[in-house]
Amino acid sequence: MPAPIDFHFDFSSPYGYLGAELIEAVAARHGRTVNWRPLLLGVIFRETGGAPLTEVPLKGAYSKRDFERSARFHGVPFRMPSRFPVPAQAPSRIVLWLRGKEPALAGRVAKALYRAYFVDDRDISDPDVAAAVAARAGVDAAAARAAVDDPAVKDALRREVAQAIAAGVFGSPFVIVDGEPFWGVDRFPQLDRWLAAGGF
Amino acid sequence: MPAPIDFHFDFSSPYGYLGAELIEAVAARHGRTVNWRPLLLGVIFRETGGAPLTEVPLKGAYSKRDFERSARFHGVPFRMPSRFPVPAQAPSRIVLWLRGKEPALAGRVAKALYRAYFVDDRDISDPDVAAAVAARAGVDAAAARAAVDDPAVKDALRREVAQAIAAGVFGSPFVIVDGEPFWGVDRFPQLDRWLAAGGF
Repeated sequence: MPAPIDFHFDFSSPYGYLGAELIEAVAARHGRTVNWRPLLLGVIFRETGGAPLTEVPLKGAYSKRDFERSARFHGVPFRMPSRFPVPAQAPSRIVLWLRGKEPALAGRVAKALYRAYFVDDRDISDPDVAAAVAARAGVDAAAARAAVDDPAVKDALRREVAQAIAAGVFGSPFVIVDGEPFWGVDRFPQLDRWLAAGGF
Repeated sequence: MPAPIDFHFDFSSPYGYLGAELIEAVAARHGRTVNWRPLLLGVIFRETGGAPLTEVPLKGAYSKRDFERSARFHGVPFRMPSRFPVPAQAPSRIVLWLRGKEPALAGRVAKALYRAYFVDDRDISDPDVAAAVAARAGVDAAAARAAVDDPAVKDALRREVAQAIAAGVFGSPFVIVDGEPFWGVDRFPQLDRWLAAGGF
């Protein structure tokens, strides 16, 4: 079995959402699976001096336009959430908790949470909302809600983010496969060729 | 005649160089011409708080890898210059001076200057080197060298950069066509579809 694709994403990242909608097709074309790795960009920005795109002069206005256009380009439904960005701890902990016990479900729930935020404008930073969305995707609601406050899951998320930083992750989406890093959904064509050719 | 594609680029930008190698094919597919618009990213970064990619923590190491990989992906020869970044005033003034008098030659000379820097590792920030490269691309060497110190050309470059900032340009390459902005060579697929479909 070839190694899975590490797909690092922040739940507040529009490009992360587009990547989440597209990564499984890329993986499937090359017989790979996806390892869903939630990320907290805020923690990373404190180390790198980065900032949310939408808050950077000039880049901010362009970015909002590019989110919408990139979504249309890829045929993915998108609506800029009324609250943006939001803290991603609650949905991230649910995905991480699930990955440990039902890996196959983790991707389905991650995509459901992303769509709740970027299509239905639901505030997934609210643990009750996040648990309800996960429940609709097939997870036990009470268990998902409990995972958000579980100290072991909180620790697991801290470790996950620390590992990502140690691996050089600084944005979302960020893919690492066979040691090769790809930042951004706009690098998926390179990722696709890399997987097809075993590097180029 | 449809409007030309405004192609904004900084001579120290590796992605700008890749864009310069690729933009004319995109333009030609849609019956457009390219308006070569040199840019000084340093001036823009002072306004936006940006910094050269290679100097940003984590992003720096990734970027150098991505420059090389993106060049291979697009089939463009590339070697990271030994001095990077360099001030882009000299080559920018030559291109701007040429654009005013022989627009058809401006693109050829811009690409020759970019290749001198990103393939042959020549320091194009040196006015004599820049003029010599332009001369090999078909321009009078003495006239090109004189343009670098011409107060009118210096003024023209200041105006060019101010216009770019006013138009929302904040990176390189940056394409604007029919009022639609595209940042990065990785947006060329969107640019291509935009020109084919008249927007999407």
